[in-house]
Amino acid sequence: MNNAMQSLRELQKKLYALQFAMNVVDFDANTIAPAESFSGRGEALEVLSGMKYQLIANPSVPALLEQAKTEPLTEQQAAEVRELLRIYNETSKIPANEYAAFVKLTSESVNAWGKAKAASDFSIFAPYLEQIVEYRRRFAAYFDASKAPYDVWLDQFEQGLSMEQCDAFFAQLKTTIQPLVQKITQSNTKINTDFLKATWPIEDQRKLSDFLMDTLNIDRNHCQIAESEHPFTTEFYKGDVRITTHYHENDMASNVYSVIHEGGHALYELHMADRLQYTCLSGGASMGLHESQSRLFENYIGRSKEFIQFIWPKLNELFPTQLANVTAEDFYKAVNLCEPSLIRIEADEVTYCLHIMVRYELEKRLMNGTLAVKDLPAAWNAQMKELLGVDVPDDAHGVLQDIHWAGGDLGYFPSYALGTAYAAQMVAQMRKTLDVDSLLKNGTLAPINEWLEQRIWQFGKEKTPAELLQNACEQPFDPSYYTDYLVKKYSAIYDL
Amino acid sequence: MNNAMQSLRELQKKLYALQFAMNVVDFDANTIAPAESFSGRGEALEVLSGMKYQLIANPSVPALLEQAKTEPLTEQQAAEVRELLRIYNETSKIPANEYAAFVKLTSESVNAWGKAKAASDFSIFAPYLEQIVEYRRRFAAYFDASKAPYDVWLDQFEQGLSMEQCDAFFAQLKTTIQPLVQKITQSNTKINTDFLKATWPIEDQRKLSDFLMDTLNIDRNHCQIAESEHPFTTEFYKGDVRITTHYHENDMASNVYSVIHEGGHALYELHMADRLQYTCLSGGASMGLHESQSRLFENYIGRSKEFIQFIWPKLNELFPTQLANVTAEDFYKAVNLCEPSLIRIEADEVTYCLHIMVRYELEKRLMNGTLAVKDLPAAWNAQMKELLGVDVPDDAHGVLQDIHWAGGDLGYFPSYALGTAYAAQMVAQMRKTLDVDSLLKNGTLAPINEWLEQRIWQFGKEKTPAELLQNACEQPFDPSYYTDYLVKKYSAIYDL
Repeated sequence: MNNAMQSLRELQKKLYALQFAMNVVDFDANTIAPAESFSGRGEALEVLSGMKYQLIANPSVPALLEQAKTEPLTEQQAAEVRELLRIYNETSKIPANEYAAFVKLTSESVNAWGKAKAASDFSIFAPYLEQIVEYRRRFAAYFDASKAPYDVWLDQFEQGLSMEQCDAFFAQLKTTIQPLVQKITQSNTKINTDFLKATWPIEDQRKLSDFLMDTLNIDRNHCQIAESEHPFTTEFYKGDVRITTHYHENDMASNVYSVIHEGGHALYELHMADRLQYTCLSGGASMGLHESQSRLFENYIGRSKEFIQFIWPKLNELFPTQLANVTAEDFYKAVNLCEPSLIRIEADEVTYCLHIMVRYELEKRLMNGTLAVKDLPAAWNAQMKELLGVDVPDDAHGVLQDIHWAGGDLGYFPSYALGTAYAAQMVAQMRKTLDVDSLLKNGTLAPINEWLEQRIWQFGKEKTPAELLQNACEQPFDPSYYTDYLVKKYSAIYDL
Repeated sequence: MNNAMQSLRELQKKLYALQFAMNVVDFDANTIAPAESFSGRGEALEVLSGMKYQLIANPSVPALLEQAKTEPLTEQQAAEVRELLRIYNETSKIPANEYAAFVKLTSESVNAWGKAKAASDFSIFAPYLEQIVEYRRRFAAYFDASKAPYDVWLDQFEQGLSMEQCDAFFAQLKTTIQPLVQKITQSNTKINTDFLKATWPIEDQRKLSDFLMDTLNIDRNHCQIAESEHPFTTEFYKGDVRITTHYHENDMASNVYSVIHEGGHALYELHMADRLQYTCLSGGASMGLHESQSRLFENYIGRSKEFIQFIWPKLNELFPTQLANVTAEDFYKAVNLCEPSLIRIEADEVTYCLHIMVRYELEKRLMNGTLAVKDLPAAWNAQMKELLGVDVPDDAHGVLQDIHWAGGDLGYFPSYALGTAYAAQMVAQMRKTLDVDSLLKNGTLAPINEWLEQRIWQFGKEKTPAELLQNACEQPFDPSYYTDYLVKKYSAIYDL
């Protein structure tokens, strides 16, 4: 390895160590930290992220990157240089004082959002969001003043993504999904979900979590489940990945699909190639790719008739009274109920992307300056009415429901929809060589994991999202797989 | 604040942030981390501690300290300068490569010790301990070549401590304790502890932990209980302190006294003055002082007849069947049983210091070169026979029981005994102005906490251990309070 590359490896190791520490601190904060422990943690995180900034936005970095490129590099080393340059540009182009002010703003903003949501009062949050939009527009210009600000941020979250692509993608989804939802709501098929509201003792739900983790072949020696308000996954490194869930005594399905969803994220991180460890290439390739893996497990596996057949004996063993008069088919339908609703994270597979479209449209307008923050709640409610046909009763169940904007993330939401569509295409490709249905029916997920590991998981950020999708599916991204899947699955469920 | 002081404050803030992160990572590792997550954590911790080393062992530090002293300093600032100089000297006098090698050695050594203990085979651990003793002797010479190595390390753990003092202290203890133990073992009073081995459901034990935390006035908004193999306390900062306990279904007392013991440590950290936050003066003044607070709560409060009277109704509410035929007096006696035994952490109040003396004698000989590591097990067994009259069946229950030496700590054990004796003196002083017995009988611990906060807790490392003891007790350290306490308490229990 040449000297410059050696120095870059040391830099990456330091970045790794600081990120490792910050991830552990965040995980702890979101799971078991005492209620009023924020201030000292905030101070520590500010210093640690300052250290990270100093390391990466350092003037010596571009020189090292240039020097590294003068000698022959392996494919991985070339990818490290490319990714480090991207991080350097992303970080160094924002003046240090503006970056620090923005980090401070988002921390205050998340706090204000929490209060606003609790009080269902958008005006508490509005001044913060106004500043965040301003910062994001200004920062976008630092990166690429020739591009529309929103295009800059879409590309940040999903390399290569643009409004043009998103517009086409969402238009295609809308064409299929809106009529499908209409047919479903007008259908005579009524799905019973009452039994899901029985009492499901949490100790037994914990046993079910363990069973699901085992079924997904998640190595518990490297992956633990904790509990948090909202489920999430975080990787400290490929040998230590944590997922969280939230147990509700009157809703067993919530935990089941949280564990499977987060389990999908975890599998991606756990199966990164060893050679990427401690480099900037470890970790999922993009938000969309990551979400494709969680959605693949949650929806395409977890909500399939075959998988439910497989877990049915276990469910009955753990919950004999609650499921006494329920069939696997009843359960399958209940966890696949389609119903336009207010809250994105509770939405079903069909309407989910409509929730994303609401956010996409509003983000686009906020970023191009055609929507003022003060007018956002009314615009939100209008979009919800138009796309989902629902009336929003208050801001807590409307524009204030998600934390993303408060955290400064504008351009993040589309990757949820993209990931879901990526997953459909992957499953379709997988079906060409694997008998997916009988694997699910037998709970034999190893061949599916292996397929994903070989084509996606192992590569980390070494390849771009588009390259990975091409690699996995042997063709470019095509959302038809997703719309076809929805139509086929839901036509059967609702007898359309 | 002068410029140099300003820079020193920034340095302290960085040290704080790195230590905060490392403490969170360690806490996580000891409580919920998955079994095989060591390697990436080890790499991250190595980098983070390297960063800390680079910050403190930096040649700019002594210059800044000199510069700071040229202008008028507050009492606190002067203490910060003094403490930073101490840390600088401690760190910078060891060459970086030797320091790194030692850190690596102790990490391997802890691993080897674990295997040695599991196999009860000292030979697995011996080569590591030989190297550790060598390092510790060499490092001592870097600090002060004019002093005996063991004196250097005693002073490191408890500022001002020397072998001369320890010899006198332990001689005085031995004079009282050995005859006391002899009288107890020959007494006709037999204490029944069988009922402690009943089945105590862990959920109920958890409720008892909460009750004890409340009784100790520990603010749960700033202090959480987790579970670990061995109980410990760690402070992330004064607003976030964690204690751990271990629940045994057949031993309720273990958790009770773990929670009270760790609760004492936690109270010390939680009541540090705000002005010390993010400086090198936050945290307990010494190991001995810290242990004095945990022992004060565990033994002088928790094992007192009055405190047991207070918690008795709660114990009966939670465990009505287990305690059906037991009186508070029975319970008091059972948790104060005195019996020479093999394991330090399970030892009673009377014999505990004899276990420490075994370690002190052996450490002294290892460090002055009169005892070879290979001869340590035999020497251990001989000391245990001489001081406690017990026969050691194997090394797992003998020389391999504690992790301290494996972690590189030689000179740490005496502070356990010192802390216990400090606490006796504090309680005696406290009794001059507080009716301690009736406070305990009523579970009104606030005045006791306030007494300790005013005299000890608030000062952090701003004062030396000796100054704090003088401050609290209005006289120098005197171990007679401790021996008098033991004789009085145990003469009553055993009707001597």
